[in-house]
Amino acid sequence: MDRMNFHVMTLFPEMIEQGLSTSILGRAMERGLISLNAVNIRDYSLDKHRRVDDYPYGGGAGMVMTADPVVRCCRAIQEKIAGEGRKKPRVIYLTPQGRVFRQSMAQELAQEGELIFLCGHYEGIDERALELIVTDRVSIGDYVLTGGELPVMVMIDVIARLVPGVLNNQESPEFETFHDNLLEYPQYTRPELYEGMRVPEVLLSGHHARIEEWRRRQSILRTDAVRPDLMEHAVLSKKEQRFYREMRDRAET
Amino acid sequence: MDRMNFHVMTLFPEMIEQGLSTSILGRAMERGLISLNAVNIRDYSLDKHRRVDDYPYGGGAGMVMTADPVVRCCRAIQEKIAGEGRKKPRVIYLTPQGRVFRQSMAQELAQEGELIFLCGHYEGIDERALELIVTDRVSIGDYVLTGGELPVMVMIDVIARLVPGVLNNQESPEFETFHDNLLEYPQYTRPELYEGMRVPEVLLSGHHARIEEWRRRQSILRTDAVRPDLMEHAVLSKKEQRFYREMRDRAET
Repeated sequence: MDRMNFHVMTLFPEMIEQGLSTSILGRAMERGLISLNAVNIRDYSLDKHRRVDDYPYGGGAGMVMTADPVVRCCRAIQEKIAGEGRKKPRVIYLTPQGRVFRQSMAQELAQEGELIFLCGHYEGIDERALELIVTDRVSIGDYVLTGGELPVMVMIDVIARLVPGVLNNQESPEFETFHDNLLEYPQYTRPELYEGMRVPEVLLSGHHARIEEWRRRQSILRTDAVRPDLMEHAVLSKKEQRFYREMRDRAET
Repeated sequence: MDRMNFHVMTLFPEMIEQGLSTSILGRAMERGLISLNAVNIRDYSLDKHRRVDDYPYGGGAGMVMTADPVVRCCRAIQEKIAGEGRKKPRVIYLTPQGRVFRQSMAQELAQEGELIFLCGHYEGIDERALELIVTDRVSIGDYVLTGGELPVMVMIDVIARLVPGVLNNQESPEFETFHDNLLEYPQYTRPELYEGMRVPEVLLSGHHARIEEWRRRQSILRTDAVRPDLMEHAVLSKKEQRFYREMRDRAET
């Protein structure tokens, strides 16, 4: 089994390292299933004060990251990878001006053995650096963050969970949310009675087929209520399609 | 100016504290514009081993967080807030089974003086706890993460930037991406010539009206190319609408 290598170009390498060391990812790193290499872009500044930003041409608020430290940082990582005989990886720039990240994109990226991420800060990065090195521009959602660090951590967490062996069998990602484009069903654990609220009877029945049917129907009801946009692409059995149609008909009368 | 208070219920309070201490948010906390209170749910477990999870009723992979520690943790925070004479805040649960977070939701939430966030872990939280305490279920995007910690950090970063005074005048969020539903224009900084690539002439012209026009057009072109779904809601001047129509007509011929 090959290890998946994540490289992150950032001005805040400690933030990346600390943020991803917890729980499942930390365990996967210890077991050698994934590696994380957070590189400080500032180390590649040739400026005597190690500056990495400057005023934007044309004016406007804030500062822009200069091209050269970013490009030199990326090439250093790429040379190291080439020197170790591995193929040139994709370079992903985190930006609201990108394709929107989804579970399906994570599945695709988890097939790559190696990925380089680039975190912008301030008002962004000189466009010429992006044209020279970036292969993919990706956004984690329609909102504005201080920098690319949190989005990179989100992407690495999502992708790493799909690397074989990272989750143990008990945690297999196949049965999770967005499987068949449905949201997950509600979960219950002990005690049976909590503040007057009972666990749904069926879950105590021990009847696996009925439990599975109840859970799927809960998933369908919930997806329809919260994210009707997903229902169009949901993968339903014939019987489930009938259940969904009847439910819709009932709702309309 | 009132301070904005963020409370986070989590099993990993250090992760939240470390991840949000950098840069703009750390500065805002020092200046008393926002506060961050990360509370360990485990501290509210009455179990002698401080357990906070158990097997799911009905079977299935993974563990489910038990209701009681979560509910007790939330009530402790709420009692403290009530004791200090402030109004009961919204309680936001981070889950893929939620409304999708966007900049417009952040603007709405930034109006609240106080917010409580709940991070799930493992296979989720006993549904009864959620029914008892949660007012909003929010998802940061269509992907599956290990826990709610990274999504909460994303939400707090986005919301805190909208709290008055957190960004200085130079960084005013008004001119950022998603203003008028357009993506941001490309940025350039020194040097004028980098690896054979020149800064666009207009940005060196000093002609503010022409620079502004060029930037708006770049935003329109980019939004149309990368996120055509946003164009339907873009706010364009008459002249810009004409430019956009002509551009589309040219593309079709």
